[in-house]
Amino acid sequence: MAELTESVTRLIEHLTRLPGIGRKSAERIAYHLLRVSKDEALALAEAIRNVKENVRYCTVCYNLAEGELCRICQDPTRDRGLLCVVEQPQDLMAIEQTGAYRGLYHVLLGRISPLDGIGPEQLTIDALVQRVRQGQIREVIMATNPTVEGDGTALYISNQLADTGVTITRLARGITPGSVIQFANREILTDALVGRQKL
Amino acid sequence: MAELTESVTRLIEHLTRLPGIGRKSAERIAYHLLRVSKDEALALAEAIRNVKENVRYCTVCYNLAEGELCRICQDPTRDRGLLCVVEQPQDLMAIEQTGAYRGLYHVLLGRISPLDGIGPEQLTIDALVQRVRQGQIREVIMATNPTVEGDGTALYISNQLADTGVTITRLARGITPGSVIQFANREILTDALVGRQKL
Repeated sequence: MAELTESVTRLIEHLTRLPGIGRKSAERIAYHLLRVSKDEALALAEAIRNVKENVRYCTVCYNLAEGELCRICQDPTRDRGLLCVVEQPQDLMAIEQTGAYRGLYHVLLGRISPLDGIGPEQLTIDALVQRVRQGQIREVIMATNPTVEGDGTALYISNQLADTGVTITRLARGITPGSVIQFANREILTDALVGRQKL
Repeated sequence: MAELTESVTRLIEHLTRLPGIGRKSAERIAYHLLRVSKDEALALAEAIRNVKENVRYCTVCYNLAEGELCRICQDPTRDRGLLCVVEQPQDLMAIEQTGAYRGLYHVLLGRISPLDGIGPEQLTIDALVQRVRQGQIREVIMATNPTVEGDGTALYISNQLADTGVTITRLARGITPGSVIQFANREILTDALVGRQKL
């Protein structure tokens, strides 16, 4: 667009590549950055640079980390006999925010998805099997997404761990708090019926 | 949040300060930036830095510019007898996108707003009056936002220009009161330009 300077055009282009940012949002953000103090705008640029330079995956659990180990793996108060398997660091974060879990994690960095050409070898499943074989873990909780691919990944992993003797569980499924039964779909209600609990 | 690394937490904090970006969007963007190549993420950081270092206001019309003059002021094909007065560079951009205007602009960089403590002297009104007094301009089109403050600003400026003999018009009320120029669509803005009326 001729009416924009080159730098602004380039910034808007880069911003539209971000998830959830359309053309109008990118323009709004670009003008916001033009308006704020140089310090504030450069602090954002610096924060992006820092993340790319300092953040890597924990060498044990593949959570995000700034050094060798993530904060959870470093935490001596965590129950080292419990291992929760999630697809992405975001899932780990959501579980942490419940405050209901005090064990360790293993982040797969994806799920098995033949359609996208993602097989077990592209995930961190080998490292997971090795961790479990070391013998300290008594229970592996599968917390992959409740989708065809997430369930398939959990099944594949539980087969890989079958001979270790470790207990394998998965997150409970059922109706969600605040939902309405008449609008729940078949799969949800089937899960809720099959997993019904004593009142 | 203990489960996030320091760099990621800082990046999310900076992202939530952007307009339209809430906590969840900021997290999504942060994880996106963690996932993409270092080159791509650093290109965004660089684009932000570039904008802050290279973009300034045109010394004639106060549009965004990379040098002394903006692209529009430099364009020899523009009608130098027509001057369109807008509040912000975004408004100029919206009008440019109609393709219906081939004159020059003057960006006020705000509107008179006593409640926010913004008086005429904080805007570029003096420079506008000087430009008009130089004699080349035959018509000034007021394209401030159709709000109480925008209209008030237009009225103030038309009073300042009363003795110059220049024709003063304003955008036709194809634009709806209470709306914002930068978000109006092409059709509305085109109608408003074509049907502009004497102020």
